[in-house]
Amino acid sequence: MQAYLDCVVCLVRQCLDASRMLTDKIEIQEKILRQVLLEISSMSFEQSPPYMALKVHRLIREIARDGDPYKEVKELFNRVALELYPELKEKIKGSPDPLETAVRLAIAGNIIDFAVSGNLDRNEVEKTIINSLQQPLAINKLPQLREAAREATSILYLGDNAGEVVFDRLLIEELQPAAKITFAVKGHPVINDATMEDAVATGLTQVVKVVSNGSDAPGTILELCSPEFQRWFKNTDLIIAKGQANYETLSEAAEKVYFLLMAKCPVIARDIGCQVGDMVVLHKNRG
Amino acid sequence: MQAYLDCVVCLVRQCLDASRMLTDKIEIQEKILRQVLLEISSMSFEQSPPYMALKVHRLIREIARDGDPYKEVKELFNRVALELYPELKEKIKGSPDPLETAVRLAIAGNIIDFAVSGNLDRNEVEKTIINSLQQPLAINKLPQLREAAREATSILYLGDNAGEVVFDRLLIEELQPAAKITFAVKGHPVINDATMEDAVATGLTQVVKVVSNGSDAPGTILELCSPEFQRWFKNTDLIIAKGQANYETLSEAAEKVYFLLMAKCPVIARDIGCQVGDMVVLHKNRG
Repeated sequence: MQAYLDCVVCLVRQCLDASRMLTDKIEIQEKILRQVLLEISSMSFEQSPPYMALKVHRLIREIARDGDPYKEVKELFNRVALELYPELKEKIKGSPDPLETAVRLAIAGNIIDFAVSGNLDRNEVEKTIINSLQQPLAINKLPQLREAAREATSILYLGDNAGEVVFDRLLIEELQPAAKITFAVKGHPVINDATMEDAVATGLTQVVKVVSNGSDAPGTILELCSPEFQRWFKNTDLIIAKGQANYETLSEAAEKVYFLLMAKCPVIARDIGCQVGDMVVLHKNRG
Repeated sequence: MQAYLDCVVCLVRQCLDASRMLTDKIEIQEKILRQVLLEISSMSFEQSPPYMALKVHRLIREIARDGDPYKEVKELFNRVALELYPELKEKIKGSPDPLETAVRLAIAGNIIDFAVSGNLDRNEVEKTIINSLQQPLAINKLPQLREAAREATSILYLGDNAGEVVFDRLLIEELQPAAKITFAVKGHPVINDATMEDAVATGLTQVVKVVSNGSDAPGTILELCSPEFQRWFKNTDLIIAKGQANYETLSEAAEKVYFLLMAKCPVIARDIGCQVGDMVVLHKNRG
């Protein structure tokens, strides 16, 4: 998906948020913001939005001398999500269709927009989870995904954010046997995306094979991933891609990709053909 | 009021909106956005937000070769507000305290955020008007304003937006005698701020003396106003300043200024000490 001019505004806001997570010093926040504005002013808008995000977040980390602005937020969200795990596990076990419930919760993990704010309101999280179990899926390719998962000999699951990986773990536990699943995390920190550290912290590595995609881009920009990851991507039967950034970077990719996400911004909702707030299990049939 | 880094994000969004009002051509919108980003990246953040807005909107008009992106929107809002005029006039006449009702409606004219979107929803406007008549004033210096207006021999009323001036007209008609009132509009178009053209189009010039402040800045940046306007400002007994931009530029000004506005952004709400959405009649007592 190509970037829209709206993505520029959103990216500037994201960078200001990142700078504030990094430091309380206004003068450093200002320095980051100015450099980001300058960088974006001459950046190509031909690529997907995560490609632009990659570039500015690299810049921020450079200014921060490799500090990770999102480190604390990610740790907090991992912890909170882990506290929810037992209760969510019960919900899945007790439901008439555990796979559907797990898919809905995996999307809920994406809805609880851990990227948006450091202020985690537990009531909001509970509300989002309850909603996700009731809200209709605006695009529902779950029957096809269910079938494809059953038939696949190998599944590559592309993770999204820290915290959210706990919700992914619940889905993976339903997508048995875990032996055929590989879970991909980012190679380096970017925004609040999950890395190997988060996979370890949330116990995901004990449930499924976890690999790094070798990249520091949000989503999955294939040409920036490691050759090894590119081979996995090519050779796997089925890909489950979580979250907006994976949609933005892979919406033109192979037919074996299923997207699980909530449309959180108007640009992506328009591209998908749904409303902001919609939950979707999306599959793009080619030809 | 000094700019906050949040104002930068808001300004980038405003410029994208302006570029879209100006043209449907994405390449021109992109050109404007890139130049705005470059300009802001090296701009002083020491001034008030309207000072920054002034600079980028000048830049946009330059790229647009003096075209006014907001021309059509302003004409539309003047027309819609004029259609409401008779009904609002009746509301004031029939109310137990016509001055208070007129003040509330003047603030409502500012609430109906003509700056925010070109999509004017008539139901929303009606709802805003009804709300404005019921909602408590979070800061209520109306008794003092009422007294000051009675005692003043000259009142300078600083207008804000096109469309909104119709609501100001209603208040001016209650602040009799009109002979002692002077209404100030912008010297040149900037965003959707009212200029002499709007004052004429909405019949304001038939009710009160209307003068230009000689400036193309939002709000009232005194040092950029004409010497003549500066003298009026200095010599008048009482100043009624409408809207956020006037607050941003005059919050440190003389004690004779009363601000009528709705706090529409968190930065201004924090500065005032109220909540977003609050209506205020504000007066800063010094010492």
